[in-house]
Amino acid sequence: MVDKNKFKTLGIYSSKKNAKAMQIASQIEEISKNLGIKIIIPQSSESLLPNKKTYSDKHVIKSVDLVVAIGGDGTLLSSARKFGSHNIPILGINLGNLGFLTDIAPEELTFSFKEVMKGKYIRDYRSFIKGSINGLNRSWLALNEVVVHSRKTAKLIEYELFIDEKFVYRQKADGIIISSPTGSTAYSLSGNGPIIHPDVKAITLLPMFPHSLNTRPLLVDENSIIDIKICNKEKADISFDSHDGHNLKPSDVIRLFKDSSSLCLIHPKDHDFYSACRTKLGWSLGVPAKNYN
Amino acid sequence: MVDKNKFKTLGIYSSKKNAKAMQIASQIEEISKNLGIKIIIPQSSESLLPNKKTYSDKHVIKSVDLVVAIGGDGTLLSSARKFGSHNIPILGINLGNLGFLTDIAPEELTFSFKEVMKGKYIRDYRSFIKGSINGLNRSWLALNEVVVHSRKTAKLIEYELFIDEKFVYRQKADGIIISSPTGSTAYSLSGNGPIIHPDVKAITLLPMFPHSLNTRPLLVDENSIIDIKICNKEKADISFDSHDGHNLKPSDVIRLFKDSSSLCLIHPKDHDFYSACRTKLGWSLGVPAKNYN
Amino acid sequence: MVDKNKFKTLGIYSSKKNAKAMQIASQIEEISKNLGIKIIIPQSSESLLPNKKTYSDKHVIKSVDLVVAIGGDGTLLSSARKFGSHNIPILGINLGNLGFLTDIAPEELTFSFKEVMKGKYIRDYRSFIKGSINGLNRSWLALNEVVVHSRKTAKLIEYELFIDEKFVYRQKADGIIISSPTGSTAYSLSGNGPIIHPDVKAITLLPMFPHSLNTRPLLVDENSIIDIKICNKEKADISFDSHDGHNLKPSDVIRLFKDSSSLCLIHPKDHDFYSACRTKLGWSLGVPAKNYN
Amino acid sequence: MVDKNKFKTLGIYSSKKNAKAMQIASQIEEISKNLGIKIIIPQSSESLLPNKKTYSDKHVIKSVDLVVAIGGDGTLLSSARKFGSHNIPILGINLGNLGFLTDIAPEELTFSFKEVMKGKYIRDYRSFIKGSINGLNRSWLALNEVVVHSRKTAKLIEYELFIDEKFVYRQKADGIIISSPTGSTAYSLSGNGPIIHPDVKAITLLPMFPHSLNTRPLLVDENSIIDIKICNKEKADISFDSHDGHNLKPSDVIRLFKDSSSLCLIHPKDHDFYSACRTKLGWSLGVPAKNYN
Repeated sequence: MVDKNKFKTLGIYSSKKNAKAMQIASQIEEISKNLGIKIIIPQSSESLLPNKKTYSDKHVIKSVDLVVAIGGDGTLLSSARKFGSHNIPILGINLGNLGFLTDIAPEELTFSFKEVMKGKYIRDYRSFIKGSINGLNRSWLALNEVVVHSRKTAKLIEYELFIDEKFVYRQKADGIIISSPTGSTAYSLSGNGPIIHPDVKAITLLPMFPHSLNTRPLLVDENSIIDIKICNKEKADISFDSHDGHNLKPSDVIRLFKDSSSLCLIHPKDHDFYSACRTKLGWSLGVPAKNYN
Repeated sequence: MVDKNKFKTLGIYSSKKNAKAMQIASQIEEISKNLGIKIIIPQSSESLLPNKKTYSDKHVIKSVDLVVAIGGDGTLLSSARKFGSHNIPILGINLGNLGFLTDIAPEELTFSFKEVMKGKYIRDYRSFIKGSINGLNRSWLALNEVVVHSRKTAKLIEYELFIDEKFVYRQKADGIIISSPTGSTAYSLSGNGPIIHPDVKAITLLPMFPHSLNTRPLLVDENSIIDIKICNKEKADISFDSHDGHNLKPSDVIRLFKDSSSLCLIHPKDHDFYSACRTKLGWSLGVPAKNYN
Repeated sequence: MVDKNKFKTLGIYSSKKNAKAMQIASQIEEISKNLGIKIIIPQSSESLLPNKKTYSDKHVIKSVDLVVAIGGDGTLLSSARKFGSHNIPILGINLGNLGFLTDIAPEELTFSFKEVMKGKYIRDYRSFIKGSINGLNRSWLALNEVVVHSRKTAKLIEYELFIDEKFVYRQKADGIIISSPTGSTAYSLSGNGPIIHPDVKAITLLPMFPHSLNTRPLLVDENSIIDIKICNKEKADISFDSHDGHNLKPSDVIRLFKDSSSLCLIHPKDHDFYSACRTKLGWSLGVPAKNYN
Repeated sequence: MVDKNKFKTLGIYSSKKNAKAMQIASQIEEISKNLGIKIIIPQSSESLLPNKKTYSDKHVIKSVDLVVAIGGDGTLLSSARKFGSHNIPILGINLGNLGFLTDIAPEELTFSFKEVMKGKYIRDYRSFIKGSINGLNRSWLALNEVVVHSRKTAKLIEYELFIDEKFVYRQKADGIIISSPTGSTAYSLSGNGPIIHPDVKAITLLPMFPHSLNTRPLLVDENSIIDIKICNKEKADISFDSHDGHNLKPSDVIRLFKDSSSLCLIHPKDHDFYSACRTKLGWSLGVPAKNYN
């Protein structure tokens, strides 16, 4: 009988090529061997385990039932685009500081990794925002946020926003951030956006340096279809997770909506979003009074 | 055959006792008579139609399938607590300025009211936040927001916040606003909270004048159980929709969660949340360019 | 020849009556005795040095050329009102956490206090905001801020603001904070006001939970005359440094302006406003790179 | 006897080349002729009065005692850099919407312009922020703001801030805005900076999308020397009034300070900063109650 909670074949991915990432990869390889779990390395991470054969992303996607991403939130974002969007769950091991997405610290790796391999974990599904331009077929994914902005800092763009084909506003601003709950603790937070628990099904629309004073972050249901029409004469840009960048011309229409795939993050059983907030955001570290029931 | 979309018996409610409210009530009475719809007036609105017999709220709740609330958002909030929480749909007619909740203007009353009576309307469900103290049976409802605050302006309270029994933070602030999406355009907005479309299933937690600089509005799923434990030595207060006020003592625990009932707002077919935002919040009134498809 | 930088007679003041304050007072007494400096204790601090005779505030003001305030920023505020507004310089010794105003820590007391007594110190002048109501003679002083607010949290007041007798705006809000630069790191900061270096000669006007979205903190020259006219029907309150509270009635006019006296704070030579910001506000504690010239 | 309040020779400047600007220039020429005032057109505005000889900026600066700038705040900014920084007063005529700096509307031109020519006007002095890089001789001026930012939107730069050679903080952000009071109603306002009356002698430091949550706008005395050291590995940019742009490399040090010249704006006698705020920022337009004295 197969235990569907247990992983049989792992991919190990990192965008970092340093000694610490290699050491963690070795550690995972060794634990996996003892547990009878197979390891596959994608070509994009070839230096992680130098003596191991590497495979194309396509092969990895077909072969593995989990990708272990070693690095920071940036590494996790790229593993999410490469593998997570193909329904491969991702387990994040952080190098250095605790991240919102990579929540296993190197010092607790042996224990936490074994626990997860025993089937003791939480599945945490995150939506991707998908975007296309002018109704063309090509599209891009963002786990955190899409940013539409003028090509130059401190220059305005003008755009019209439509939600589910209803006109919302026409606005002049440096740009607009369209963020998932996952992205609410990333760039959106720097622009005074709210912090959104991953369970909330919403998309945040946050104008950047808006020209009007009565603008506030706007949250819409994650199933909304968001259209942004570029009205300015000068050129603009769009980026997905600060990564895929594309030029926009006047009257281009960007359509954004929730992708049909989701990212499945794997967390140890004791994972706690609020604990990550306290650590990462410097919230009061006070422990609750003992007499609270 | 009964058309379940058509209303048979209406209550008419207003917390206002002025000539304009009376005139609108008469107009509704007349249209209703022509359409064969029965009208009932609750005792709390006795002066609205002076010659008409009035009934207890209890009787109204049993007898009507719609309450028409005449006034501003304040009137609608009280009709929501009185009737809406007993599953009676509410139709809001505004006196004066367009409200977020009362979206039929007096000048379009005849047309819009008839349309709604013909069954041409939208149902818009809004959650209530329910609150109780120290696990006692007594509870209160808020459609907009619950506010926990120090008894005096500009004095701090200290509290611990727990979501689903997980510790979030211990905070010093003048108070905290716990707001529904409906309340996101009310008091929360004055405190720089985000604007939240009614379809988003979330509750906003917004500290008021927090003592720490790294606090931001926090959004949690509307099914979360929110516990706030009062830690300060001085007394605090709690209010529901700026209405039911209660004293709190040190170590009181407030439990807040989504009520099992919802408010059903009735809107004309052309109701548009974003249009209300543009009018009420002074957003750019620009009309979309003609060439947008 | 008299060295005008050296202090001859000290008052010691504290609003705290605990062992630590008493111990620091003893330490100051001992060092002072060795340096030939006289100590006077005001009646309001009688338990500080239990065997010492105490004097009226009036006598203290006539006799001393420095008051040493032992406690937190609250103690310093009350010493500023009692003695500082009579042109007595104040030296703040903090109990516990570093304050913005009390910048000698107990562990560096012996060294820093001796240095100051040798005449090695900085004078830092801070303006008081003075307020009166309806042109009456009675007035109050605030070092940090004046707050005009509704008697109940989350209730609006309506007021008109005039600067130098020019109309600025009519506003609905929970209240308004009128803050000095000294107060910019106190209550105003909780309301998202800017941080203002003590050398900037400005007053910040910060509406609290304003009803309109296009309000921002407004800074005016510290020599401006600020009139606030209460327009609401319900009662309001005014407080000075969260201390002197007074009831306001509809159509009362509050006049605020810079007092002719200033507070003279005495700091050790190495006093650094930005260092206090980094410590108190949790700014990045990074030390500048060595190669900066 | 010469009336030193009266202007003898005017330059007329506009960065706009449209019919309305030309029509206003003609109107000014005609009124001036009647008043015996000489008109000079700089080469940069040659199309304004097509039949008139034009002169180099250098000649204009030597010859005129006032420049009339026709356009929006952008035109005024460029006239300020060209002529105002050489101690030539500037009178702004707005085309279209009322500006903060160009406060004579075309419809009141004849009256207001004649009044000013009669010597009935207010002088309003505004500071320039001057900037240089790495201690080199070349420098640039900004009337509104200097912006230091990453070359790409939504990319971080890292920098250290020093005020009067004291370390303030090391910060990661998209950039930092260094704004004069004049600029407080421009770009800084879009980034939630405070509104600062022109009489306040301060410079606002406003990080853009800062990486830490405890950053707030910081105001320092306008005589402060501000050093910003670029610490990031990627390239950054600096711009003055969104205009003079320059590349920055890692470890470049930008020095900013108040220029020794000031801009002298000429306003009609009834000029009112708060009235401009109400119109431009959409503040409540309410007129004070009649019974206020």
